[in-house]
Amino acid sequence: MKTFKLTIAYDGTGLVGWQRQAAGTSVQGLLEDAFSELDGRAVAVTGAGRTDAGVHALGQVANVAIAREIDPSGIVRAINVRLPPSIRIVDAAEAAPDFHARFDARSKAYRYRIWNADVMSPFERGYAWHVPSPMLDAGVMAAAARLLEGSHDFAAFQTAGGETHSSRRTVLASRIDRAGALITYEIVGDGFLRHMVRSIAGTLVEAGRGRRAASWVEDVLRSRDRAAAGPTAPPEGLFLVSVSY
Amino acid sequence: MKTFKLTIAYDGTGLVGWQRQAAGTSVQGLLEDAFSELDGRAVAVTGAGRTDAGVHALGQVANVAIAREIDPSGIVRAINVRLPPSIRIVDAAEAAPDFHARFDARSKAYRYRIWNADVMSPFERGYAWHVPSPMLDAGVMAAAARLLEGSHDFAAFQTAGGETHSSRRTVLASRIDRAGALITYEIVGDGFLRHMVRSIAGTLVEAGRGRRAASWVEDVLRSRDRAAAGPTAPPEGLFLVSVSY
Repeated sequence: MKTFKLTIAYDGTGLVGWQRQAAGTSVQGLLEDAFSELDGRAVAVTGAGRTDAGVHALGQVANVAIAREIDPSGIVRAINVRLPPSIRIVDAAEAAPDFHARFDARSKAYRYRIWNADVMSPFERGYAWHVPSPMLDAGVMAAAARLLEGSHDFAAFQTAGGETHSSRRTVLASRIDRAGALITYEIVGDGFLRHMVRSIAGTLVEAGRGRRAASWVEDVLRSRDRAAAGPTAPPEGLFLVSVSY
Repeated sequence: MKTFKLTIAYDGTGLVGWQRQAAGTSVQGLLEDAFSELDGRAVAVTGAGRTDAGVHALGQVANVAIAREIDPSGIVRAINVRLPPSIRIVDAAEAAPDFHARFDARSKAYRYRIWNADVMSPFERGYAWHVPSPMLDAGVMAAAARLLEGSHDFAAFQTAGGETHSSRRTVLASRIDRAGALITYEIVGDGFLRHMVRSIAGTLVEAGRGRRAASWVEDVLRSRDRAAAGPTAPPEGLFLVSVSY
């Protein structure tokens, strides 16, 4: 048995998310079916983290162990032909036998994309949250975003139903950038609570509407109350960009 | 009657192109149906140029005359609600009564996108031509592209069936840029022959494969022979970016 580290990109449109579910098409389910067919036995694929229905990935990471003698480039070719074009293994590399995509992850980077114009771009449908006028104040959003950097209790940005006991996380970077109608939010952290990036995005948009000062996000953080934060932004704007080990 | 200049973006995936056809969904057909419903009479919409099936537009331009009293922002709202989300009027402006989107156009800008990596990105399906390895030589492609700038007879880059008598055109800019796997070709010209951008893109890729020197495109130009050029690149990589007046 050899263990491989897989880097996977997927367009989450129409998928139930990363995790295999009783019904619907999942990335994990499609990968496990493809690897099981390749290896002639039931194969488990473990991801660095779950992504929700409709969420995309540029660099999800997973581990898999294969009995059959095959090299990494062979895995990329053999699995990609068994997957729909919306899901691609973009890289495979042999890893230590005990490599675990989830437990060994040191940080993850997410991107949240917002299309802030009255008319939605046909090319951003499914890949950005459409927020019509007024024009959001990206300066206020950027200042608010920076206040989330550091170690904090992010309970206010967590949807009930998450798996973890502590809601303390360290955010290494939290940045807003605007280019025309497109506002991009990039966040890097050592771990993320359920719906954390999407509820932060919803909160930053509230700040950008000009009704709140940037410092309001500190009040939200301190409240540890989900009701104090903004709405959970829709899944189609969210991308898992990369996982670091 | 007031005449309006419309700027239109569309995702050409699944469309038969700009022009109304006997069968299939066209941008012109959907726009004319929407304007006719709005104005309560048969309304014609004239585009700056046809785009083929599967070709996209960021800034197609069209003219339309409306009897009903309505302002430009009212047109944007009223027509967009009658269109599928793959087609959006991004701007409308009142124009001179004799404004003609096609005859008055001074230049057009097109972009052709190429994804040059073994694994296709899930997010580029339908928006770029997938050219797997070997890695194309973007330097050779850029040098070849520059040789097309100026006034030339582009007969070698024309598919039979075009409407025009002369195949002489002036190319104002013809540039290649590479960022990772994505190669972008930008061309600005005073007019374009049928399949001209796509046959140039196919020819530049041939040059990028390293089998031809950049100067080969001058031989192709001089030949005036379609068979001397590279293949016609697929429609999904092509975007009509803008039309200048």
